[in-house]
Amino acid sequence: MTSFEFDEAIAVRQTGSGLGAVVPDGWDINGNANGGYILALGANALRTACGRAQPITITAHYLAPVTPGPVTFNTEVVKAGKRLTTMAGSIERDGRTLIRMLGAFGDLAPSGADDDQAVYQGAPPDLPPIEQCERRTPEGGSAVVGLADRVQMHIHPEDAGALHDRPSGIGQTRGWFDFHDGRPIDSLALLLAADSFPPAVFNLHEVVRGWVPTVEFTVHVRAVPAPGPLRCRFDTRYVSGGALHEDGELWDSSGRLVALSRQYGLLARV
Amino acid sequence: MTSFEFDEAIAVRQTGSGLGAVVPDGWDINGNANGGYILALGANALRTACGRAQPITITAHYLAPVTPGPVTFNTEVVKAGKRLTTMAGSIERDGRTLIRMLGAFGDLAPSGADDDQAVYQGAPPDLPPIEQCERRTPEGGSAVVGLADRVQMHIHPEDAGALHDRPSGIGQTRGWFDFHDGRPIDSLALLLAADSFPPAVFNLHEVVRGWVPTVEFTVHVRAVPAPGPLRCRFDTRYVSGGALHEDGELWDSSGRLVALSRQYGLLARV
Repeated sequence: MTSFEFDEAIAVRQTGSGLGAVVPDGWDINGNANGGYILALGANALRTACGRAQPITITAHYLAPVTPGPVTFNTEVVKAGKRLTTMAGSIERDGRTLIRMLGAFGDLAPSGADDDQAVYQGAPPDLPPIEQCERRTPEGGSAVVGLADRVQMHIHPEDAGALHDRPSGIGQTRGWFDFHDGRPIDSLALLLAADSFPPAVFNLHEVVRGWVPTVEFTVHVRAVPAPGPLRCRFDTRYVSGGALHEDGELWDSSGRLVALSRQYGLLARV
Repeated sequence: MTSFEFDEAIAVRQTGSGLGAVVPDGWDINGNANGGYILALGANALRTACGRAQPITITAHYLAPVTPGPVTFNTEVVKAGKRLTTMAGSIERDGRTLIRMLGAFGDLAPSGADDDQAVYQGAPPDLPPIEQCERRTPEGGSAVVGLADRVQMHIHPEDAGALHDRPSGIGQTRGWFDFHDGRPIDSLALLLAADSFPPAVFNLHEVVRGWVPTVEFTVHVRAVPAPGPLRCRFDTRYVSGGALHEDGELWDSSGRLVALSRQYGLLARV
């Protein structure tokens, strides 16, 4: 049986007092675990605790950086409904809450099923073929992105300037997402993908770049993706009051929307 | 001292065992309290419990309809940080959780302050003057909207067909928002405004209309609005897998973005 890196990285184990996991090296940016990876890890714990297959809409608040090492989970069934189970929970270390979560879990249809009433007033990003996009590398840009050794992010040439201190002036990052080791993209991988790309705000001339701490991150999962890489688009249209948002759309290889994401981030004070 | 209806409706009182409130008549749609009003009520309780002035980003999951009558609040300080205090909580009745919340609270600047790094790659909706828009009335459309006696929603003529079973075909609702009694619009009122308009999905031809239950609702508050009515735009671009999103932008009279909202809703099964 093949073992994929992401499955190992989000594995949740029953311990004496509840659920636990070990955050491995390599899913990080500058040593701190990526926020999308962390959300996938937390969602996997909540999913395990409630017995529903997939996150449907999940929100996380990021309270402290997560470094490699053991963590434990608190999980609470808020309401077990017919269609959805609402879960609350947290990721803890040494009695300290690192991440707090609230989400609804259920059973997603595969992409394309249950879609007789589908309406699309938008489309996937128009991306050049993968080989004409720029691959994000661990050493590219201003950070050491360990994550880029695990997932393949191929960025639209028009948006790749953010990696080289040549922002495009448009708060947008578009690109292809896939796993390095060929792992299929499921609902938990969508949570990872929704926070893996270079921040769209890095393409704005006007804004000081660097660390953009995420306060809150919400992902809506619409369907289990069809096999193949994702096409993703992330937009930051409004920076104001020391804050920003980043909106993501994730599309599968069949041209269907599989997730929407939005985060609230702080602009580093200068 | 003038008393405004909204302040009375979201008033939170210390009770023997914690915080409580009474949900009054008149903030409802078909008898159930509006989701935006409920979020404002819950945020007021969390705000009171943490001593920070404003919600910055707040998420609610709606577990059961809220009818008029007494409710109690559970509140928990998850983390009291320097810039933000993270709060979790719920609205309860008779031992049952009706609403569960997670949010960050802090001190917002007035619209226009702290904006030397502001970037706007978008603009307020282009609305005709209020008197050329269509006022939402309690009896308009398919529901009895008690809320429409408390707040003034003047809807763009191009989007008002949703009120009369003549959907525009574009999943959009634009309009002016203000209080009937002239109450200033503050951060809590923004939470109300973000879920007061007729659902944007009602303007889609393809979709069966009716009850669109909100599962999750998140609002980012960017600034305390300048005096005057809000200009609002709500978009539902993607309906799929039995679900929809609605994204809101709320702009103040000075032309500044004051809030972003997004909700995840279910399509009624037919």
